[in-house]
Amino acid sequence: MKAVTIEQGDTGVTVREVPDPVVGPEDVLVRTLRVGIDGTDHEVIGGSHGGYPAGETYQILGHEAIGVVEDPNGSDLQQGQLVVPTVRRPPPDGGTNAYFDRGEPDMAPDGSYVERGIVGAHGFMSEYVATPAEFLVPVPDSFAEYGFLIEPISNIEKAIEHALATRSAFEWTPESAFVLGNGPLGLLAVAVLTQDAPMYDQFERGYCLGRRDRPDPTIEIIERLGATYVDSRETPVSAFKAAHEPADLIVEATGYAAHPFEAITALAPNGVAALLGIPDDWTIDLDAGRLHRELVLENKALVGSVNSNIPQFERARDSLTRMPEWFLDELVTGVFEPAAAPEAFADDTDAIKTVIEFDTV
Amino acid sequence: MKAVTIEQGDTGVTVREVPDPVVGPEDVLVRTLRVGIDGTDHEVIGGSHGGYPAGETYQILGHEAIGVVEDPNGSDLQQGQLVVPTVRRPPPDGGTNAYFDRGEPDMAPDGSYVERGIVGAHGFMSEYVATPAEFLVPVPDSFAEYGFLIEPISNIEKAIEHALATRSAFEWTPESAFVLGNGPLGLLAVAVLTQDAPMYDQFERGYCLGRRDRPDPTIEIIERLGATYVDSRETPVSAFKAAHEPADLIVEATGYAAHPFEAITALAPNGVAALLGIPDDWTIDLDAGRLHRELVLENKALVGSVNSNIPQFERARDSLTRMPEWFLDELVTGVFEPAAAPEAFADDTDAIKTVIEFDTV
Repeated sequence: MKAVTIEQGDTGVTVREVPDPVVGPEDVLVRTLRVGIDGTDHEVIGGSHGGYPAGETYQILGHEAIGVVEDPNGSDLQQGQLVVPTVRRPPPDGGTNAYFDRGEPDMAPDGSYVERGIVGAHGFMSEYVATPAEFLVPVPDSFAEYGFLIEPISNIEKAIEHALATRSAFEWTPESAFVLGNGPLGLLAVAVLTQDAPMYDQFERGYCLGRRDRPDPTIEIIERLGATYVDSRETPVSAFKAAHEPADLIVEATGYAAHPFEAITALAPNGVAALLGIPDDWTIDLDAGRLHRELVLENKALVGSVNSNIPQFERARDSLTRMPEWFLDELVTGVFEPAAAPEAFADDTDAIKTVIEFDTV
Repeated sequence: MKAVTIEQGDTGVTVREVPDPVVGPEDVLVRTLRVGIDGTDHEVIGGSHGGYPAGETYQILGHEAIGVVEDPNGSDLQQGQLVVPTVRRPPPDGGTNAYFDRGEPDMAPDGSYVERGIVGAHGFMSEYVATPAEFLVPVPDSFAEYGFLIEPISNIEKAIEHALATRSAFEWTPESAFVLGNGPLGLLAVAVLTQDAPMYDQFERGYCLGRRDRPDPTIEIIERLGATYVDSRETPVSAFKAAHEPADLIVEATGYAAHPFEAITALAPNGVAALLGIPDDWTIDLDAGRLHRELVLENKALVGSVNSNIPQFERARDSLTRMPEWFLDELVTGVFEPAAAPEAFADDTDAIKTVIEFDTV
């Protein structure tokens, strides 16, 4: 079958034939529809994140997928059901472990999981994917086009869930949310936070940080979602509070190493910053004393969050249902066929979210 | 009545006569038994923290008190009942506010409270104290000697409660706790974490950081409580994980500005550091990229915590009940009469916890 891969030693993607997936006794065979491209894929290609499957000279890329059940293979799923796969799997030779047993592979420490398309396992950018039914989330037929967004949304759902948990020991009455980053993950976070649903209704005012000049499609999206665009060149995170208001919740989706620490100052008393970015090493001068003091005297919290589990995928599916069609149409700026994957991965002029389409329903 | 004060312009404490407290219609009159001295008192004296009551040229010090009800003044309390006062009160002219109304003054932002003995209000180092019954926690008669420790313990209870809350969105199975600091607050944190009670039983192994040579009474206390002493000169926080084990919970009680950031590295995956210290400004080089990445990829959290509320005082009372008598005897190294307050505040040779005794039951 056709697949999009990174080959050892290469610095760009390859489109090639790979063996069809081996369908194990527990596996469902899924025909791939669409697979999104995100920053992690670029890190995998660049070698700063992830790693090849054991014994392989290449890795199939991709972890944001939607597909259709081709062969349920005895599972409860029906042929033709649309599904979104989760990303983490138990290590190949380790069987399972407590984190997977309790449905929280997202909390498994390094070494006790592999991640499809990221570390130690092939991804979803191939015509077919085999995976156990327990790692597949059924989604409505109407999700063929945009269901691949459920995986990145699920990471936001988890980060916000964990952020809210940090504030669960007291009566928190947040009003403002500030998303750092106007890339696809940041824009999805704005869409999650501005949706009309009980968990998010408390956030009455939303802000989103970027560094682009108007006119710009991401600024238009931010404003059409009802949030306020914050240009980091005029208003850096450290100046946000004075320029706008202290933020009760901050969602960091830039991977910019200074942002978690600048966020401490931008937070309102009792506020929390949820961190999603994965930066490289970068040593900077920080007023550790002031940050430490602000965290304590104002009861603030920082919480890191990676990956996501089935309930978070299900919440992401619900959030996606509530996202306006215009938003999804504006967000997904490029749809490429597999043969054009090299162009898709190079697509950065005015691109927001790019997706490879293997098939349609 | 006699009181221990800091006078504007002075750099040390004064023992002087002050007017008896005005007993308002809602106030209970309390005869003070003992008031502990802590680092915050020294910060108030030094001027780096807190502030004088409006219109006053002096401030009565002290916020760790135990007393006995002298006049219940129509409240449900009985004359002779031992009580511990909480610290925060509504601003003098602001009436009350939502934080006080819901019993969470500890979560009130700066400006919406005063703190007795710290900022904007007289403390408890005087023969009598007047305060509403809602700010008094009844304690058993056996607490006359050590009940003043309930206030600092309550701050630890709150910090741990908030730290556990940050981990409530998943199944956390902590085993190890690492307390930074072998001052009184650090030692009390070790005693809280090593007690035989359901909330703390999950922490099977305790560690406590200090920088003292053996033989040393704090090291003896740490080890007698069943914890492991960690000498920061041999094993800095950043080297703790390699030397011992990653810590599931860290409780920072040093006020050393680098510790929250070094703690990120010392934490186990899914771990949390609760911060209690209040440092001055101090700019240092930090590998912000690595810290940010570790927070995210290992689902770690930092949570600051200040002050405490009534349920946390009540939990502190329960924890104090479970602390061994030898520990309290070893912890409280100095009992001074009010006239000797200047010596009490200067008592730092081999002193662990110092207390001013105004009266006995």
